[in-house]
Amino acid sequence: KEIALAPKETSIDRMKLEDLLKRRFFYDQSFAIYGGVTGLYDFGPMGCATKSNMLQVWRNHFVLEEGMLEVECAMLTPEAVLKASGHVERFADFMVKDEKTGECFRADHLIKLHAEKLLDEKKTPESTKKELTDVLAQIDGFSQSDMGDTIRKFGFKSPITGNELTEPMAFNLMFPTQIGPTGDLKGFLRPETAQGIFVNFKRLLEFNQGRLPFAAAQIGAGFRNEISPRQGLIRVREFTMCEIEHFVDPEDKDHPKFDRVRDYELTLFSACNQMDGKPTEKMTIGKAVDQGIVANQTLGYYIVRVHQFLIKVGVERSKLRFRQHLGNEMAHYAKDCWDAECLTSYGWIECVGNADRACYDLEQHYKATGVKLAAEKVLKEPKTVDVIEAVPNKAAIGKSLKKEGKPLIAYLESLSISGVDSLEKELKDKGKAAIPIEGKQVDLLPEMVEIKRCQKQVHVEEIVPSVIEPSFGIGRIMYAVLEHSFRMREGDEQRTYLALPALIAPIKCSVLPLSNNPDFAPIVRMVTEELRDADLSHKVDDSSGSIGRRYARTDEIGIPFGVTVDFDSLKEPHTVTLRHAVSMEQVRLPINEVGQTVKNMVTNRCSWADVLNKYPKFEQQEASAK
Amino acid sequence: KEIALAPKETSIDRMKLEDLLKRRFFYDQSFAIYGGVTGLYDFGPMGCATKSNMLQVWRNHFVLEEGMLEVECAMLTPEAVLKASGHVERFADFMVKDEKTGECFRADHLIKLHAEKLLDEKKTPESTKKELTDVLAQIDGFSQSDMGDTIRKFGFKSPITGNELTEPMAFNLMFPTQIGPTGDLKGFLRPETAQGIFVNFKRLLEFNQGRLPFAAAQIGAGFRNEISPRQGLIRVREFTMCEIEHFVDPEDKDHPKFDRVRDYELTLFSACNQMDGKPTEKMTIGKAVDQGIVANQTLGYYIVRVHQFLIKVGVERSKLRFRQHLGNEMAHYAKDCWDAECLTSYGWIECVGNADRACYDLEQHYKATGVKLAAEKVLKEPKTVDVIEAVPNKAAIGKSLKKEGKPLIAYLESLSISGVDSLEKELKDKGKAAIPIEGKQVDLLPEMVEIKRCQKQVHVEEIVPSVIEPSFGIGRIMYAVLEHSFRMREGDEQRTYLALPALIAPIKCSVLPLSNNPDFAPIVRMVTEELRDADLSHKVDDSSGSIGRRYARTDEIGIPFGVTVDFDSLKEPHTVTLRHAVSMEQVRLPINEVGQTVKNMVTNRCSWADVLNKYPKFEQQEASAK
Repeated sequence: KEIALAPKETSIDRMKLEDLLKRRFFYDQSFAIYGGVTGLYDFGPMGCATKSNMLQVWRNHFVLEEGMLEVECAMLTPEAVLKASGHVERFADFMVKDEKTGECFRADHLIKLHAEKLLDEKKTPESTKKELTDVLAQIDGFSQSDMGDTIRKFGFKSPITGNELTEPMAFNLMFPTQIGPTGDLKGFLRPETAQGIFVNFKRLLEFNQGRLPFAAAQIGAGFRNEISPRQGLIRVREFTMCEIEHFVDPEDKDHPKFDRVRDYELTLFSACNQMDGKPTEKMTIGKAVDQGIVANQTLGYYIVRVHQFLIKVGVERSKLRFRQHLGNEMAHYAKDCWDAECLTSYGWIECVGNADRACYDLEQHYKATGVKLAAEKVLKEPKTVDVIEAVPNKAAIGKSLKKEGKPLIAYLESLSISGVDSLEKELKDKGKAAIPIEGKQVDLLPEMVEIKRCQKQVHVEEIVPSVIEPSFGIGRIMYAVLEHSFRMREGDEQRTYLALPALIAPIKCSVLPLSNNPDFAPIVRMVTEELRDADLSHKVDDSSGSIGRRYARTDEIGIPFGVTVDFDSLKEPHTVTLRHAVSMEQVRLPINEVGQTVKNMVTNRCSWADVLNKYPKFEQQEASAK
Repeated sequence: KEIALAPKETSIDRMKLEDLLKRRFFYDQSFAIYGGVTGLYDFGPMGCATKSNMLQVWRNHFVLEEGMLEVECAMLTPEAVLKASGHVERFADFMVKDEKTGECFRADHLIKLHAEKLLDEKKTPESTKKELTDVLAQIDGFSQSDMGDTIRKFGFKSPITGNELTEPMAFNLMFPTQIGPTGDLKGFLRPETAQGIFVNFKRLLEFNQGRLPFAAAQIGAGFRNEISPRQGLIRVREFTMCEIEHFVDPEDKDHPKFDRVRDYELTLFSACNQMDGKPTEKMTIGKAVDQGIVANQTLGYYIVRVHQFLIKVGVERSKLRFRQHLGNEMAHYAKDCWDAECLTSYGWIECVGNADRACYDLEQHYKATGVKLAAEKVLKEPKTVDVIEAVPNKAAIGKSLKKEGKPLIAYLESLSISGVDSLEKELKDKGKAAIPIEGKQVDLLPEMVEIKRCQKQVHVEEIVPSVIEPSFGIGRIMYAVLEHSFRMREGDEQRTYLALPALIAPIKCSVLPLSNNPDFAPIVRMVTEELRDADLSHKVDDSSGSIGRRYARTDEIGIPFGVTVDFDSLKEPHTVTLRHAVSMEQVRLPINEVGQTVKNMVTNRCSWADVLNKYPKFEQQEASAK
């Protein structure tokens, strides 16, 4: 059994939002009738539609607009792949257990919880407060023994029972399984989608006709066996990620489109400012790259594109910042890393990581498999290099080895420079060399091979590309958007609604007949056909509630526009009213213009203000709605 | 290690198709640089786009057009859920092992392989052939001992080593894992998405305002630890499914839209015809339901909608049939089941299962959790029922039990009829009753409760809905579509191409400048902007190959339309040629009409024939392309 630590901050707003999300089934705990499983959530119709709209925007914004190669790789991953990537050894959190009950806590969360509590208490001595503040500032870089020392020093106990805690131990966060019927092939559920792209690098490079730079992208599930998940969608065990791996020449990380975004302004929280206790800064990405604050143009370009995406799907600009990782936070191979963080009632949460991972991953998989994951780079000027080759004497080999000769010839031709070197040495020392061919040893005699030294002009060189990786947690972004779009009608705290961007709203338009008068039915049908022709998701609410109550229900699930069929609609030419949920303003327009008008607003081709300008404002019903 | 049995049928076509799919990276084996894992595939850019287009069509065709409630549920599933659904006990295949090497084989596949081989051999006696034919006809219904008997009787050995085989044993096909850090919560990767919908039934019914019928739908991954996967995308360990669960009153399975499809004609292969050795029959769905061949209107309606979907995404009509399950093939609770089968080089393969599962699943989860999964049905006439209630005497309870009284009152009010019955009996027999309240026993005395008997008029009754389930294997459908759309140009066997429906083609339009003359660049840009405005995926190929060779490359990946920028394009008003890949015909049209023209063809609003009628045919280039 695990115990979720109680969240530190709660506000009445969040409870109202959570009530709405549960009640209207945006999402809710999985397997609730079986008691539920922490860290697993099911998306209901509204959440599912919002999420799939968000993924469609992502695909358009990144894959289509930037011409990326989208892939979909297996989630089940054999152990060897995740050993090479370092996940088997290092993808772990530290946990402590209650010595008596065996309950598990994530060590850093437990320390934070206790430290924050002590800091809030008046009786805590100032010197202890000073120490605890330092602990909180450094905890993200704490080692196993740092955590143990801290827990012992302050005498932290189980927050549930008050019992003693064990020493911290590493707990690997990957879900293990076995592939195949014999149980020999150990595997894991992937903790990230990125490795699937890396192991496909050769195919993707070939697809791109051998040219760098290019970017591959993947939308898919990742799995992390969190020790004690909490905070709703923010820390879960199964989640949708979108990852981009942009492969680039390590010596030239300029981006051809950087000049288009050079003047784009962002809120940056650099490592220096964090260390110096200074606040965030507004800065153009051009200045940040020029001054070396952001490591290179490609990383800078993606930071801007990520910012644009987040704003497009509804993150509030003032609640978005990019925070640079501190030295001890970053993986040893990473060159630079900036997290897009959104401010929520849980504090600033990481929603998108943007890292320059250098050539670490490709090199690790090369080491593990012997398959070279490199690209050819055309040199500006051809260069002369020393070459040493083992040239097989095919006649001699064929004569003495018959059909075993062929693989031997292939072997000799594939030798690297160092391989030829050591072959030459062996031949000189022993008068022959033992070559492994198909599980057997074959003797190579000096007359079978000629070691040639020469110089060659080369026009290309092999390089292992660097990788710039933006990695999106879709659930976290969605949660931030839901918080940022949650509103209450002025003067009516009970009437909450979601001001979602129309682009991601689960349903684009509601259709409400004023009453259940049967004369309205054919008009309602005309409206729904109009909306269907424009490919707009819509919902007819012909239930018996007052029009005001039905509006409130549609506002609550973020439907941005609403059509009302009233008695004037029965007259020809048929007209209806169109309502803008956020402002509650309405206009009157002909039915056959409804589809295009809503479509244009949903795709940001026109605004509500434009519509207000074009059509007569409608007041009467708004009054009756109150 | 597992050994994939060699596929029985191979044709030169399939090898060519597989070569194309690998070479142009539609999909390929996962983790190939690590030696690969059987039954796991990665989709490259072309496969990924084709698949995501197919899913989008599915979502429009089913979720939007039929107003279904789409959900997305967790893949990690606790054991209790899959125990209730029967998967822990019964979701298994039988396997046999090589007694010496331990290699595993799926028993039914092994029997089929040996039987087919013996049937092909001249020396096999006629009597044996007769027996083997019977085995093949019945094998889908074979029990564990049937399989063992057959293997022993005919002396089947390992096809790899010729060694003896073990007795068949059941192997559960679910991937096991542990959820949480203590390892106490056993879980599995879901073998189907359906259970996620069933455990959300209450929330979905509430979302639908308590009304039946309604359908929920889910697109997501399923996992099956196949014993020896083979046949490419057809038998894999991780796959995308689309499942619909249509909840309906078990006493009224009529469908309101059935009359719209009544005259739709299908190829049906009924259980009777299979047993009588008769062929398939063409029949309207109306006739099939009227004659009781298909069990009910709702199942019939879905069979038609599935047929329409499969045709829309590119399954060939003549290679599609609906085959009814035989009695012994069906789960014991199922009422009727029809598989949509597609003919491929592997034979007829099941692509969509359509089953009437009765109320089995909801009842199982009710039994396991005690949470009633039922809907209220309004009775045609109110009916009088005997009611027995335990009415708490609140004053007496409060007085003697203080704060423990509240849960006791709630307990009494929630009792079912049989619960009140046994309570009454206990009170009579013992003078008191022991009630479990929050883990303790509380004594209920006779004065605390009044047992009331009366009659009540009820207007609704509770029913457990029946479920009609169409379940789609997207990988299999995609493979069938790829086979059905694979073509060779007449007279040129090397020039293969994919005649994919434009709706699901990975890229809708290519843009080819006739040469790398720099004057073409601004025109190419005009065309790509035109296509982008129409939201059409496109690919510019300005490589140096001849126009004919570049056409062939685009045909190979199923790009249905191609725009060529030639010297005439430089003149104002700017025009380009538009090519239809399947017919290789071309027309000339103004650039600003390209986007809408291609869009209309992609969305089936107009055909190539319409375009040929509207614009002048262009011949010249086609000649130069040869």
